[in-house]
Amino acid sequence: MALIVQKYGGTSVGTVERIEAVAEKVKGFRERGDDVVVVVSAMSGETNRLIGLAQEIQSPPTAREMDVLVSTGEQVTIALLCMALNKRGCPARSYTGSQVRILTDDAHTKARIRDIDDENIRRDLKAGRVVVVAGFQGVDEEGNITTLGRGGSDTTGVALAAALKADECQIYTDVDGVYTTDPRVVDSARRMDRITFEEMLEMASLGSKVLQIRAVEFAGKYKVPLRVLHSFQDGPGTLITIEDDSAVERPVISGIAFNRDEAKLTVLGVPDIPGVASRILGPVSEANVEVDMIVQNIGDDQTTDFTFTVHRNDYEKASEILQRVSAELGAKEVVGNNKIAKVSIVGVGMRSHAGVASKMFTALADDSINIQLISTSEIKISVIIAEKYLELAVRGLHSAFELDQADVVSEA
Amino acid sequence: MALIVQKYGGTSVGTVERIEAVAEKVKGFRERGDDVVVVVSAMSGETNRLIGLAQEIQSPPTAREMDVLVSTGEQVTIALLCMALNKRGCPARSYTGSQVRILTDDAHTKARIRDIDDENIRRDLKAGRVVVVAGFQGVDEEGNITTLGRGGSDTTGVALAAALKADECQIYTDVDGVYTTDPRVVDSARRMDRITFEEMLEMASLGSKVLQIRAVEFAGKYKVPLRVLHSFQDGPGTLITIEDDSAVERPVISGIAFNRDEAKLTVLGVPDIPGVASRILGPVSEANVEVDMIVQNIGDDQTTDFTFTVHRNDYEKASEILQRVSAELGAKEVVGNNKIAKVSIVGVGMRSHAGVASKMFTALADDSINIQLISTSEIKISVIIAEKYLELAVRGLHSAFELDQADVVSEA
Repeated sequence: MALIVQKYGGTSVGTVERIEAVAEKVKGFRERGDDVVVVVSAMSGETNRLIGLAQEIQSPPTAREMDVLVSTGEQVTIALLCMALNKRGCPARSYTGSQVRILTDDAHTKARIRDIDDENIRRDLKAGRVVVVAGFQGVDEEGNITTLGRGGSDTTGVALAAALKADECQIYTDVDGVYTTDPRVVDSARRMDRITFEEMLEMASLGSKVLQIRAVEFAGKYKVPLRVLHSFQDGPGTLITIEDDSAVERPVISGIAFNRDEAKLTVLGVPDIPGVASRILGPVSEANVEVDMIVQNIGDDQTTDFTFTVHRNDYEKASEILQRVSAELGAKEVVGNNKIAKVSIVGVGMRSHAGVASKMFTALADDSINIQLISTSEIKISVIIAEKYLELAVRGLHSAFELDQADVVSEA
Repeated sequence: MALIVQKYGGTSVGTVERIEAVAEKVKGFRERGDDVVVVVSAMSGETNRLIGLAQEIQSPPTAREMDVLVSTGEQVTIALLCMALNKRGCPARSYTGSQVRILTDDAHTKARIRDIDDENIRRDLKAGRVVVVAGFQGVDEEGNITTLGRGGSDTTGVALAAALKADECQIYTDVDGVYTTDPRVVDSARRMDRITFEEMLEMASLGSKVLQIRAVEFAGKYKVPLRVLHSFQDGPGTLITIEDDSAVERPVISGIAFNRDEAKLTVLGVPDIPGVASRILGPVSEANVEVDMIVQNIGDDQTTDFTFTVHRNDYEKASEILQRVSAELGAKEVVGNNKIAKVSIVGVGMRSHAGVASKMFTALADDSINIQLISTSEIKISVIIAEKYLELAVRGLHSAFELDQADVVSEA
């Protein structure tokens, strides 16, 4: 008998039929003797409908009232799910964020959880009830309704699991786990049984949209075992957990992430003097353009080349800023490219294995793919290549690191 | 400068455009220097949509969860109205029933208000804010969301006005006041400037659906001046207030109410022995059939005739029960009629004026309308007539009591 927190997203509760299916699933866990706390999102489409109403009236809408408005979405779902559970002879009780008391700061529309009162939930679990909690929302110290920002229901699930010291936090989605890479690109992409929090963070931030980054960070910080599962298909999913040194040796590379959302900008012939990086990136950041990779090549003489990537939507904006900055700095030229893609290999195993990078570069060279930019972290190596080579690169790397072979330690 | 509580129903806030119009109206009061607390219902159609979702899942739905579900309707409206006010430079803050704290008992879906904490509202009013409160909902001592039952937003408005000792509680509707009778039946029906709580109660319970009976009772009990106004047309509306003896003499009759929703049942030849009324009505009430008028004629010999009216929808059910009861009692026969209508004249003035009844009966006789049943209270006389004579009767009485002539004391 375990204590399990389960989170079902908007698609999983998008219709009355799906809410019934979720109730059926939860009932199964109860019958096996588990205590279950369920966190749900708004029915899919509902949050957008509410935001639409708000935008018809006020743009941008008052943040406090926006939270009052959109928090109704999850409130509808918790009530309906409890009805579906009660109908099945499975006693259930719903809680809004305020009723639980999920205490947050007062940053409306992007609040952070400060504390969770677990008294009511524990009392209900003890009484044999399923507890159904509205995701994505909380309450500040003044009693104002707050929301954690979109996708925050994952965070609610993890935070509840941490507060209740749950045995597992299960995130139900429309995929059956975390894959070594996108199965739409690589046929032999394989569901991983396990992945570490650090790897998952790198995978998530690199475009594997299975889990919200904040939820993964939170789970890692509080050591909450996190499992990604399919809402309506049976299977073990993928367990995201802390690195276990006692376990069998892990593969060097766990997965391959990629995205096509970036664009690359280079200022050529920048005077190689201190402070030049901040004089280039300062104005970019002031314009609210987020920068991802940053690479500065050592110059041959008194100049250097400075390259960074931004979201493709910000490409024009960033280019204009750079033209101005470049002139001020006396740089030679600004060049850019928005037909690029980023490919990253991720794995905690690379920490202790030499040669991972060269194996990656060799694999790409074997397919005649030119590397435009390289950036590395302790458990990740990212390269920028021409967008047209993306699929070729991912498939080649997936094969080179033998990711299609489960539980085999790759040779680096 | 007055403190005004305004209540807008579902139709008045049924679209984004109408919410904007309400905001414009509220802003006008603020500009005249009034403090305003606004109570709103769910956007029209929303409550039914939510009930529909619930009924797809569970029938009847768990009452506690039903309240969690439907209370979201008003929560959406308070947020949108605050946005519309804020946009107009009119600072506003929304409150759910739980946030105000409108404390109720725990009778889910039909809770009654026990206490209202006015601290937050007073603080906001003092800070120059409009306070927007979700109608129809509250919270019990355990923190569970409760609702006051459908139409309960009027009650919320009146209860808030009482708690805040407001100068007036304004109920905005789709009519511009309370009329002497239904203008669709009598062309010369006239909006009343004033009506007493007692008269309004009789008018309301007799089918003038302008206000919820509970709200009028509440307003009368706490002496809250209540005004019925049109949401989108200017005008003084009708003030519902306590009787003011010092004022000019009131007309004998204030208005004429009627309804076609009733059916009449008579048990003929009932043995005239003690306890017979309860033996007839007991089984009817046990079947959850509500009885309106009850008349027992004094019998000539050892038998009596017992007549009562029920809602037309309950006619068949009540007939079947009576057939059974009649046999047990050894009564002669059960007869019934569901093509009847009830017409009532209402007025506090009739207390001190003799001859009102005979004037009513004379007016009906002049139109050759046969009276099937008569029932009286201190400020009301109701008759049952054949449904086909309804319009004729109402028009005749409206003219006989000179209701088309404002502020003229009728001679009884």
